[in-house]
Amino acid sequence: MTTALLTDNYELTMAQTYLQNGRWKERAVFDYFFRTLPFEGGYAVFAGLEDLVQNLQTFRFGPEELDYLKNTGYTDDFLAYLEKFEFCGDLYSPPEGEIIFPNAPILRIQGNLIEAQIIETILLNTLNFQTLIATKAARIKEVSDSALVSEFGFRRAPGLGGLAAARAAIIGGCDSTSNLEAGRRFRVPVAGTMAHSFVQTYSDELTAFRQFAKVHGSKTVLLLDTYNTLYSGLPNAISVAKELEKEGKRLAGVRLDSGDLAYLAKAVRTALDRENLNYVKIVASNQLDEYVIRSLYNQGAPIDFFGVGTSLATGLPDAALDGVYKLAETAGRPTMKFSEKLSKSTLPGCKTVWRLYDDDGMFTGDIIDLEGADFPKTMIHPFEPDRFRNVSRFRFEPLLKPVLKEGKLLNPLPDVLDAAAYKKERMEKLPVEHRRFENPHIYKVGISPALKNLRDELRVQYRQSK
Amino acid sequence: MTTALLTDNYELTMAQTYLQNGRWKERAVFDYFFRTLPFEGGYAVFAGLEDLVQNLQTFRFGPEELDYLKNTGYTDDFLAYLEKFEFCGDLYSPPEGEIIFPNAPILRIQGNLIEAQIIETILLNTLNFQTLIATKAARIKEVSDSALVSEFGFRRAPGLGGLAAARAAIIGGCDSTSNLEAGRRFRVPVAGTMAHSFVQTYSDELTAFRQFAKVHGSKTVLLLDTYNTLYSGLPNAISVAKELEKEGKRLAGVRLDSGDLAYLAKAVRTALDRENLNYVKIVASNQLDEYVIRSLYNQGAPIDFFGVGTSLATGLPDAALDGVYKLAETAGRPTMKFSEKLSKSTLPGCKTVWRLYDDDGMFTGDIIDLEGADFPKTMIHPFEPDRFRNVSRFRFEPLLKPVLKEGKLLNPLPDVLDAAAYKKERMEKLPVEHRRFENPHIYKVGISPALKNLRDELRVQYRQSK
Repeated sequence: MTTALLTDNYELTMAQTYLQNGRWKERAVFDYFFRTLPFEGGYAVFAGLEDLVQNLQTFRFGPEELDYLKNTGYTDDFLAYLEKFEFCGDLYSPPEGEIIFPNAPILRIQGNLIEAQIIETILLNTLNFQTLIATKAARIKEVSDSALVSEFGFRRAPGLGGLAAARAAIIGGCDSTSNLEAGRRFRVPVAGTMAHSFVQTYSDELTAFRQFAKVHGSKTVLLLDTYNTLYSGLPNAISVAKELEKEGKRLAGVRLDSGDLAYLAKAVRTALDRENLNYVKIVASNQLDEYVIRSLYNQGAPIDFFGVGTSLATGLPDAALDGVYKLAETAGRPTMKFSEKLSKSTLPGCKTVWRLYDDDGMFTGDIIDLEGADFPKTMIHPFEPDRFRNVSRFRFEPLLKPVLKEGKLLNPLPDVLDAAAYKKERMEKLPVEHRRFENPHIYKVGISPALKNLRDELRVQYRQSK
Repeated sequence: MTTALLTDNYELTMAQTYLQNGRWKERAVFDYFFRTLPFEGGYAVFAGLEDLVQNLQTFRFGPEELDYLKNTGYTDDFLAYLEKFEFCGDLYSPPEGEIIFPNAPILRIQGNLIEAQIIETILLNTLNFQTLIATKAARIKEVSDSALVSEFGFRRAPGLGGLAAARAAIIGGCDSTSNLEAGRRFRVPVAGTMAHSFVQTYSDELTAFRQFAKVHGSKTVLLLDTYNTLYSGLPNAISVAKELEKEGKRLAGVRLDSGDLAYLAKAVRTALDRENLNYVKIVASNQLDEYVIRSLYNQGAPIDFFGVGTSLATGLPDAALDGVYKLAETAGRPTMKFSEKLSKSTLPGCKTVWRLYDDDGMFTGDIIDLEGADFPKTMIHPFEPDRFRNVSRFRFEPLLKPVLKEGKLLNPLPDVLDAAAYKKERMEKLPVEHRRFENPHIYKVGISPALKNLRDELRVQYRQSK
């Protein structure tokens, strides 16, 4: 699937103007960042980079696309330009799975004015959604303790966006997905049990369970609530578990999909244990999210496996990350979008981000700085310049690393499971106060004195020009 | 892109069991319906059918998919079955754009047990999301009066789900989309203006506006708020409008993207009119939804064109429709999922839906009935059987019509713009009380006496079997 038309019309109206103005070779620098953390949380998990890179490397205008654009009214000289278009810009970012925060650039694109502009829509589409979902998954995993979490959401996911959701969910911390295409494409584990309809197609529940177990043996997970969880599903599952034992097999689990999950899980666990079926796992599903799972955990519900669907695959209640892509430099000239509110202005210039580590190796702040500058001694609050702190004692590392150079991938990207492992590793460096759900401690993202000075200069220049 | 793996693993674990039980030729009937109207509204707009039909007709397992399934542990006999798999079932539904209500089947699938089961995930994925978005678009269009509405959401849309969102938005009532691939693929109008970055790349705003107008002439829409809407953007736009007039051209519009849109729109309209630029349209964007647009309209904001992004492309605040796909009949035997709550039980049997019209030709209720029955004299509340009404005086039509017969499309499906026209036509038959945002009047969906009797019988049978 070609992706070059997966873009907003205005990207091309602007590009055509640049071409006709003879400006297309000018270099531009754009930043991707977001202003508000999703879910009123304290952090986000970066995801979507591999898909973005693939989208950029296949960003082409074929004959059908050009034909369509001609009919839309674009000029022949512009179409001739698009026909040869390839993204040959540079991309800097952290690896997928990085823990990220508002206002600091997460990704920087450098290229000519046209290529850096027309990739905006697909870049935002790819990164905003996957980062949202990876963050949701991280929150869910956070409260699931030792239980496994599987992404079950494709049926209510936003169309084919459901595949990207499954991918991002694994990066964020899910152990598996129910979606087979996601399993195949991203080489991640799949999970799945049975539906009520399966049980209904048999004359009775016990027969349905037996037939399923006959085929799936020790992989069998039985859904208990088609008729009645405790009075029908549970005794039938126990019968089948004992029958499996006689064949040297073990029932893998039972699934609860309705009713009071805390109450039912305890009752089912007690009954299973009484029958010496301690090894049978309890799977729970049905409108779960991080708050419901936390509540179940706090109630001591003995659930071993959560299937999380809608809230995870859609990123409810936010359903979108407010990531933006803003011009920072053009033809070597730093630029910014002005606003009466400093917090709505953008930060000018080609920038980098320093991540600070405290003596225990934990994250303790990010500093947005001008690219090429030495590590600063001070970080300043981005919107309240009289708030600053001395940072000279901290260890630091650059957050943005080169990924694409002139359109070429410098190093193979980590696969989804590697990204998930990286997220897990990085998450351990985030102090727990930032991971809290209620009023998380705000992670400090500041700017360097050099960047503050540049912004001040541009604001003075702009005021004088009026 | 093959879609056969765009399915939950459990569909295939069940299918393998059916095959090994020798039951795969048994006929099954499944219903698609939802229980709760999105957005606390009074109606929904059916969308996604054309994509679903295409997904069913290309639902194949190729060598890569089979290879993957083999590694996942599926058996060779099952893989041999899947290799030849084609969906050869029947599909009944209304056309896209139909106005639909909870509990009544919106779509019915009849086929063998395996084919009717394994399409569940992709069916739900396709219909749930597009119906959600079409409904959101209908609500937005409802309050936009004569203003045009364009879908601007791809940048914050759920990945490639954004394309389906654009499609559904047009069916629901949007006049255009910003997304070029959606424009090309669905043959719908596209819209687009310019970004702040465009203005920033020029030495000053007036130059940027002039250069854009030079290229785009009478199609030019200028974004006013890069520096300051009223003191910079507006006077510069007026200058460019006058310059265009000298060339016999007309500035198409100006766009407001921040600040108080009601206040700014009035100020901009007044200034434009004072300069005899009455023809210049005002475009507004920035976090719009149906409530903001209604408020702008109530304040008399003179906005001609709304660009609606995130809330439309994600279907906020719901972000998902709770549509389900439930077994109603198997091997000629009506079946239902039992629940202590009647409202959570399903309705048994192969069913049809009657839409009732009053003397003015307005919709006045839907009756769920058994397929093949004569039009009933009475409709009964689905969950409170002592509430019923006489319906013999109403005109009626069946809502579900054959679309696929043995996998073959009976008639070409309407295209997206036809579906949008059908929605508009049908919407006019929905009494305004159901279209209200606050506590809409509940549209009556009932069941026929025959269906009620069947449900009662099955419940008695089930109780006796315990």
